[in-house]
Amino acid sequence: MNKVVTFGEIMLRLSTERHLRFGQSKAFAATYGGGEFNVAVSLANYGIDAEFVTRIPDNEIGHCALKEMRKMNVNSSNVLFGGDRLGVYFLETGAGNRGSNVVYDRANSAIATVEPGTFNWEKIFEGKTWFHFSGITAAISENAEEECLIAIKTAHKLGLTISCDLNYRSKLWKYGKEPKDVMPEMLKYCNIILGDIDTAFFMLGKEKINPDYTDEASLPSLYGKLFELCPNLKVAATTLRYSISASHQRIGGILFDGKQIYKAAVKEITPVVDRVGTGDAFMGGLIYSLIKDTNNKQKALEFAVAACCLKHTIVGDYNLATLEEVENIINGDGSAKVSR
Amino acid sequence: MNKVVTFGEIMLRLSTERHLRFGQSKAFAATYGGGEFNVAVSLANYGIDAEFVTRIPDNEIGHCALKEMRKMNVNSSNVLFGGDRLGVYFLETGAGNRGSNVVYDRANSAIATVEPGTFNWEKIFEGKTWFHFSGITAAISENAEEECLIAIKTAHKLGLTISCDLNYRSKLWKYGKEPKDVMPEMLKYCNIILGDIDTAFFMLGKEKINPDYTDEASLPSLYGKLFELCPNLKVAATTLRYSISASHQRIGGILFDGKQIYKAAVKEITPVVDRVGTGDAFMGGLIYSLIKDTNNKQKALEFAVAACCLKHTIVGDYNLATLEEVENIINGDGSAKVSR
Amino acid sequence: MNKVVTFGEIMLRLSTERHLRFGQSKAFAATYGGGEFNVAVSLANYGIDAEFVTRIPDNEIGHCALKEMRKMNVNSSNVLFGGDRLGVYFLETGAGNRGSNVVYDRANSAIATVEPGTFNWEKIFEGKTWFHFSGITAAISENAEEECLIAIKTAHKLGLTISCDLNYRSKLWKYGKEPKDVMPEMLKYCNIILGDIDTAFFMLGKEKINPDYTDEASLPSLYGKLFELCPNLKVAATTLRYSISASHQRIGGILFDGKQIYKAAVKEITPVVDRVGTGDAFMGGLIYSLIKDTNNKQKALEFAVAACCLKHTIVGDYNLATLEEVENIINGDGSAKVSR
Amino acid sequence: MNKVVTFGEIMLRLSTERHLRFGQSKAFAATYGGGEFNVAVSLANYGIDAEFVTRIPDNEIGHCALKEMRKMNVNSSNVLFGGDRLGVYFLETGAGNRGSNVVYDRANSAIATVEPGTFNWEKIFEGKTWFHFSGITAAISENAEEECLIAIKTAHKLGLTISCDLNYRSKLWKYGKEPKDVMPEMLKYCNIILGDIDTAFFMLGKEKINPDYTDEASLPSLYGKLFELCPNLKVAATTLRYSISASHQRIGGILFDGKQIYKAAVKEITPVVDRVGTGDAFMGGLIYSLIKDTNNKQKALEFAVAACCLKHTIVGDYNLATLEEVENIINGDGSAKVSR
Amino acid sequence: MNKVVTFGEIMLRLSTERHLRFGQSKAFAATYGGGEFNVAVSLANYGIDAEFVTRIPDNEIGHCALKEMRKMNVNSSNVLFGGDRLGVYFLETGAGNRGSNVVYDRANSAIATVEPGTFNWEKIFEGKTWFHFSGITAAISENAEEECLIAIKTAHKLGLTISCDLNYRSKLWKYGKEPKDVMPEMLKYCNIILGDIDTAFFMLGKEKINPDYTDEASLPSLYGKLFELCPNLKVAATTLRYSISASHQRIGGILFDGKQIYKAAVKEITPVVDRVGTGDAFMGGLIYSLIKDTNNKQKALEFAVAACCLKHTIVGDYNLATLEEVENIINGDGSAKVSR
Amino acid sequence: MNKVVTFGEIMLRLSTERHLRFGQSKAFAATYGGGEFNVAVSLANYGIDAEFVTRIPDNEIGHCALKEMRKMNVNSSNVLFGGDRLGVYFLETGAGNRGSNVVYDRANSAIATVEPGTFNWEKIFEGKTWFHFSGITAAISENAEEECLIAIKTAHKLGLTISCDLNYRSKLWKYGKEPKDVMPEMLKYCNIILGDIDTAFFMLGKEKINPDYTDEASLPSLYGKLFELCPNLKVAATTLRYSISASHQRIGGILFDGKQIYKAAVKEITPVVDRVGTGDAFMGGLIYSLIKDTNNKQKALEFAVAACCLKHTIVGDYNLATLEEVENIINGDGSAKVSR
Repeated sequence: MNKVVTFGEIMLRLSTERHLRFGQSKAFAATYGGGEFNVAVSLANYGIDAEFVTRIPDNEIGHCALKEMRKMNVNSSNVLFGGDRLGVYFLETGAGNRGSNVVYDRANSAIATVEPGTFNWEKIFEGKTWFHFSGITAAISENAEEECLIAIKTAHKLGLTISCDLNYRSKLWKYGKEPKDVMPEMLKYCNIILGDIDTAFFMLGKEKINPDYTDEASLPSLYGKLFELCPNLKVAATTLRYSISASHQRIGGILFDGKQIYKAAVKEITPVVDRVGTGDAFMGGLIYSLIKDTNNKQKALEFAVAACCLKHTIVGDYNLATLEEVENIINGDGSAKVSR
Repeated sequence: MNKVVTFGEIMLRLSTERHLRFGQSKAFAATYGGGEFNVAVSLANYGIDAEFVTRIPDNEIGHCALKEMRKMNVNSSNVLFGGDRLGVYFLETGAGNRGSNVVYDRANSAIATVEPGTFNWEKIFEGKTWFHFSGITAAISENAEEECLIAIKTAHKLGLTISCDLNYRSKLWKYGKEPKDVMPEMLKYCNIILGDIDTAFFMLGKEKINPDYTDEASLPSLYGKLFELCPNLKVAATTLRYSISASHQRIGGILFDGKQIYKAAVKEITPVVDRVGTGDAFMGGLIYSLIKDTNNKQKALEFAVAACCLKHTIVGDYNLATLEEVENIINGDGSAKVSR
Repeated sequence: MNKVVTFGEIMLRLSTERHLRFGQSKAFAATYGGGEFNVAVSLANYGIDAEFVTRIPDNEIGHCALKEMRKMNVNSSNVLFGGDRLGVYFLETGAGNRGSNVVYDRANSAIATVEPGTFNWEKIFEGKTWFHFSGITAAISENAEEECLIAIKTAHKLGLTISCDLNYRSKLWKYGKEPKDVMPEMLKYCNIILGDIDTAFFMLGKEKINPDYTDEASLPSLYGKLFELCPNLKVAATTLRYSISASHQRIGGILFDGKQIYKAAVKEITPVVDRVGTGDAFMGGLIYSLIKDTNNKQKALEFAVAACCLKHTIVGDYNLATLEEVENIINGDGSAKVSR
Repeated sequence: MNKVVTFGEIMLRLSTERHLRFGQSKAFAATYGGGEFNVAVSLANYGIDAEFVTRIPDNEIGHCALKEMRKMNVNSSNVLFGGDRLGVYFLETGAGNRGSNVVYDRANSAIATVEPGTFNWEKIFEGKTWFHFSGITAAISENAEEECLIAIKTAHKLGLTISCDLNYRSKLWKYGKEPKDVMPEMLKYCNIILGDIDTAFFMLGKEKINPDYTDEASLPSLYGKLFELCPNLKVAATTLRYSISASHQRIGGILFDGKQIYKAAVKEITPVVDRVGTGDAFMGGLIYSLIKDTNNKQKALEFAVAACCLKHTIVGDYNLATLEEVENIINGDGSAKVSR
Repeated sequence: MNKVVTFGEIMLRLSTERHLRFGQSKAFAATYGGGEFNVAVSLANYGIDAEFVTRIPDNEIGHCALKEMRKMNVNSSNVLFGGDRLGVYFLETGAGNRGSNVVYDRANSAIATVEPGTFNWEKIFEGKTWFHFSGITAAISENAEEECLIAIKTAHKLGLTISCDLNYRSKLWKYGKEPKDVMPEMLKYCNIILGDIDTAFFMLGKEKINPDYTDEASLPSLYGKLFELCPNLKVAATTLRYSISASHQRIGGILFDGKQIYKAAVKEITPVVDRVGTGDAFMGGLIYSLIKDTNNKQKALEFAVAACCLKHTIVGDYNLATLEEVENIINGDGSAKVSR
Repeated sequence: MNKVVTFGEIMLRLSTERHLRFGQSKAFAATYGGGEFNVAVSLANYGIDAEFVTRIPDNEIGHCALKEMRKMNVNSSNVLFGGDRLGVYFLETGAGNRGSNVVYDRANSAIATVEPGTFNWEKIFEGKTWFHFSGITAAISENAEEECLIAIKTAHKLGLTISCDLNYRSKLWKYGKEPKDVMPEMLKYCNIILGDIDTAFFMLGKEKINPDYTDEASLPSLYGKLFELCPNLKVAATTLRYSISASHQRIGGILFDGKQIYKAAVKEITPVVDRVGTGDAFMGGLIYSLIKDTNNKQKALEFAVAACCLKHTIVGDYNLATLEEVENIINGDGSAKVSR
């Protein structure tokens, strides 16, 4: 049976409600999330044995994050206590042509200040088959980046499948290194990469490109370069996102397995209840599908797109759609009738 | 003056808010509703003398339901106390391509466990002109079904107009009888039936059909069979519902009076605030219009469709649209300007 | 540096939430606003020195309004205490084809009962460059209308630019005078007028017209008549509003400067979070742009339209969009991506 | 069977929650109440046929008040529509040594502006046995006072028992008359009066006194003077209230029936959930008890005190305590165990 | 290391907030709890390995209960899915002299309808040292009672310590058996019993007694009879509860170990935030202390009393007080200073 | 006219509501406060011209804090933008014997990382008469401490009255210096000091003492030592706080002016709505009174105690009691009757 480990940061998210702006809010909804944790929740919801590894402060707010992991059935047995604070981010949810707004307050978090070598990855990976991380972990601090690289190398050594969501965030990467300084080393161990091709090229320190995803014939060679740069790569996937407005998105996907291009039809999403974490929902769906049937790439892509679509209707950072709900979308039933 | 009696169940509805899923909710909005009660509320809002007959438990929750009836100006003077519990249903309101979700917890409710013969229908129907019930009452328990049949027969004997909303719910009908065992007897007394033709055929135990409502020429003979099976039938109407997503519905309607087909133009509904009870709003509008002008079938159908549309914008089970608001929609003003 | 004074009423707004109807609401959201105050807030948000002049009662509710002015950085140093009550209005926010509903309860408010001559306009206007008022102030009471006229004349004498939003409200004008009795005198001092041409004609006591805003060639002569009737007029602007439903609006604009017609492209707004005050947001944007670059009429109109669009996504009476957000819309980015 | 009519004003109450001050509140809880309506609700709760007569505006807010009457099972069949507004009051609930704060905004309400002679009291009182009013109705406007006097005289002529709660409010009585100008005429028809002796003397235009309620021997002659001034008086009762803090009250009572003094033991109330309407709860309890057993004055007083105590634990203007709960308090069980 | 298993029902609790009565509530706070689950949560909070065994329906509401178990770190690996519904109870929280009100709607719950023999207790108890149940499980249905007896006998056979909280609920026991029919058999295996002596005698079918807990000398013989009737009994404890009002409780305790009486000083509790589950908090504290130091009976009793006190300040069914907080109370610091 | 400047940190406070624990909360109430800001708000409420000086980040959360300053009528014209984050603290409000709990997350805040010398104190103090700071500013970082010392010395040079609230927080002082390293230098310029004598001695690096405030005769010599150590000291005051429980406090006060001891009677406070900021309310009251009548020390102390008491009933960090409310308490009316 497959067992997946994800590593990264879990934050307290403080969001305004009912489209209020920050300055109007007398209360913030408090939830907990973070890219790699969100992936673990998706997997746990689909029935996969999923574990999240991080460090949280040993205070009441850290314990809230731990309760959330347990509630969502994510294994937290290798979570460490330490550091001074849980990272925080503030979210103002937009509408129509007013975009959502994120204010990060995550510097010096428990995981950002972890001493590299703190986690016993050999032990953590015992009996595990898959390791997932994202570019965010490499972006928050040098310490986190170094710890992540140790994890990647250990996972590689132990034969785990390794996946990465590139997740470039321009507001992070403040600690003195650029993506091209660290990501090439990390990505070379990866078997599955999710991200835009141009982001991948940027992170790998290559020349800037402007991929045209509608020009299907051009894609194999573009993705092919990625395969050249990442010798362990088996699957590269991209979420196609067309942002009509904060309340209306269109989502499709592309996948390349080194041999052929797979495409998923673009789906309309309106209204958008919560835009955050929809990429993580895609990633979670992709991992799940590849675990279940590694050879059915078309299904994997469609599952990822459908999961991503459903996440847009769900409040909070992580996807709460069930396996059955995702399957229904794939099977063409997006009519969303009342079940009664 | 017309006086209408409806008979059925009123439930406590517990719904999540702001699109939260069940597992995210720390509170449930508490409202009260049920198919036949919802129809009575619609009629009371339009100025009709409407009475709702049911049984509720003599506990605090039952009294909450009674307060709701009074608040909505629905006559409750023949409501009986008894039984152990008020039926409950849980509602998770969907959005976009995530459908709404209903969890019923209505078994063994006060009305489901009523002893047939408990209500004094002769007295209840004194001075009344119309009796309405729905297929839900026949579906919840044998006791309720038998009591309902007594009511129907008494209403027929006393010369009341009888209407039925077929309202097939696959999650009910658990007590050992199928629709075809009881509905034919009930429907034969009915003067007005609301429902899909295929549902009607199914409930009447006939062969399955797939009506094509866009093939207008085929409809007279299809509805005609219904008229053959239900000798008292005067009007058969169908709500045409096209579910684009949980947030986007398209509603039209068809009516057959034994002679000709009437059609109402399809209206766009976006966003959907609350999908539940929109069929009851259609029924309420139909009864009201037929009472007001029994000969104007086209107006009756358009009124029902407009009422149904407006209900989609209203929180809770029953329709709160005013007569004036429904008329405005019929008169083509759906632009919904601010009234000031 | 430009300093703007606006004069009018600030009210307590009590609105239902989550699309509830009045009869369903156990609580009302309490905010504070009013046409001319809303304009002042817009200007303050854009960095303009803006002052609001009014009279409020010296009770706790009046002080709440004062706190709101301060919070929004609107100069309140000439606000007077007096009178018995703050005006109130109730708002039920619609959705889809159910329109929003306003119940006014603003009669006998502190500003409506002000004794004409109460404010020392000579002193208030010291160092100020712009005076703004609206047709609402003329509509609430004879006292307010007379005070407003004193303000207008004083502003004119002192050489301030004068702007007016016609803002016709049929539910007001209850004190015995009609618009044509007072507005012509007021408008003759105005340099900028915002409103529909037919409303302007109506308020000026002229024959009713039905302008066709799509017939661009016809507009110069129509607006030209306005310029004839208002000898100080420099700019006349009109918000083009197409109300598809309470949740879907389309907004464009037209501006005439005595020489040529400027047009702004129509923008789609869906969903509408809050429809109230969108005209004030237009006005605020127009004043700001004309102050910043009085010669760029095209930019002024586009800024006004963009500000108006963004206001539809913001809860409450006044616009909270930032300068940067408005500029982004003008520059064509309505895709509303998450900023992170 | 006894049927009681009360006459007065019903207002929209807008209160802050969780001890917030006005300036901190972004929302107000909306409930409906008023002295005489509150008495009617108490009686309806105890099973008495109770009717409330008033005038409300024919707008959405007026209809909310009507819904509340119906919900609480108070007969509203003689409520008239008319006037411009429903009276409003704002309530800031105190705690500890910070008192609650009321801001009235009730001038020019529908009932305050009623034309005397509007109500058909002869018809209203048909089949009724008891009429209740309070000093508030006399205080809000001359029109209301005159209408109330017509009601009183008609009730007297038709032989109804008449009760009055003196309810002196210094913030009212703004219309040019003082209590001593109108209350003597009103009180001379009264059979039951609730109020402090000094308030009664003040309203009757007599010299100021300082009654010492602990000097039991002095009370018969003090109350006796009241009986002299009010020839129809049968029962005079006083709520003894000791306000330790906004959260801690002590309530007792005294009753004089022209022959002897009855006393009810003082009860501790902590915490106070809602102080408003506790006097009306006393009045409602007194009327109920006197209807049920006119001769048991001791029981009547104790019932009134117990009802008053329980009201302090209930949110809103009127008492929701059940007959059984009041009886339990009288029978000495204030331990308030969980019922399960 | 000790591992505790508790067996019973977990319910959805729907409670009114801010002291509202049922009929005033438009929403119910939704939490999950039940006597034996609450004990498990207490133990998990103190660091004990605690497992809860029950049956829940395989619907969304059942899954909510499961999420709650996980969140609270209670082992749920032997929870079964089955049955039709999760039990529900409604709670109206009182204040002052108005008591809290519970409406049970728990008949036919998943655990009440479990087929005896469904659970594999031999396997469940592997590696476990303690089994806890309560009289509620015996009261809800014959099926639950029989399953519980199987568990008790299996636990006894396997040498686990067995504890029982008598928890008599007069509103339960509806299935045809009385406590005396089943409790004697159950209690004879128990090592620790919590309850009033008179309740114990009643459940054991003995003559009614009226123990005077202040007469310390009388207690050894009273408890001694219990020890005679329950041959395995080692510790009998009683929570002394003095209910001054719904907001003010006084809590003490008595414990008898077959040899001597231990007493804990009575503590004042004001205000009471949530009265429900305080007995379970006592039980949880008692089990924890006896596990940690079985010989220190005085400490065990004081720990149980302190835990019970703290629970009164916590919303929901189960105790969230930490080990440190309980210890602080025992050490005499109830001054509750701000920790900062 | 007196003008007061306070200097320190303003934080975002995130607090649970309705006594929920952190782990139960799905939302945090968001308010803004901090010791020295709270003092400025008190003064502004009493009509004093009060300014707050700090540094806030130029992001949305920083702007929220700025809006709060303006709303509360506190001059913010010398507030600087800079740094990365606004300090945050989490508050769990206790009840009964469960204390409130504060989790600080204020490290690296905008003010803690300010470069000493950033503020232009000479300019800030122009026309000002009083400077207030507290021991918290010295505790948060070396930078803040150094900036504060510059401010103190400048204020002293310019002849302002200087006051300090010692405000010892053991969870702060993490940056390498102890109070005794910096406070003696700061306090030697102070004219008014608020704090416990033992805290003062501790901060001044003197031997630990255990003052007995009930031994009045001992106090002059104890406070006298403070006067010896602080050559500019004119008034030393101490808040006497007796914490009965989190919901019940008793507050008194002592003041020494170098010549005699003044005492204020102890007041009962129950319930405590919000304990935070009550010391700042004391300080604000003390400064106000000394400004108004520097010679009436008894009145100053009583005003401070009354203000402190009232703050306990007010949600949030700062005091919203009005001058009139404080005066009423001093004049002995703590009965908190409803004002209507």
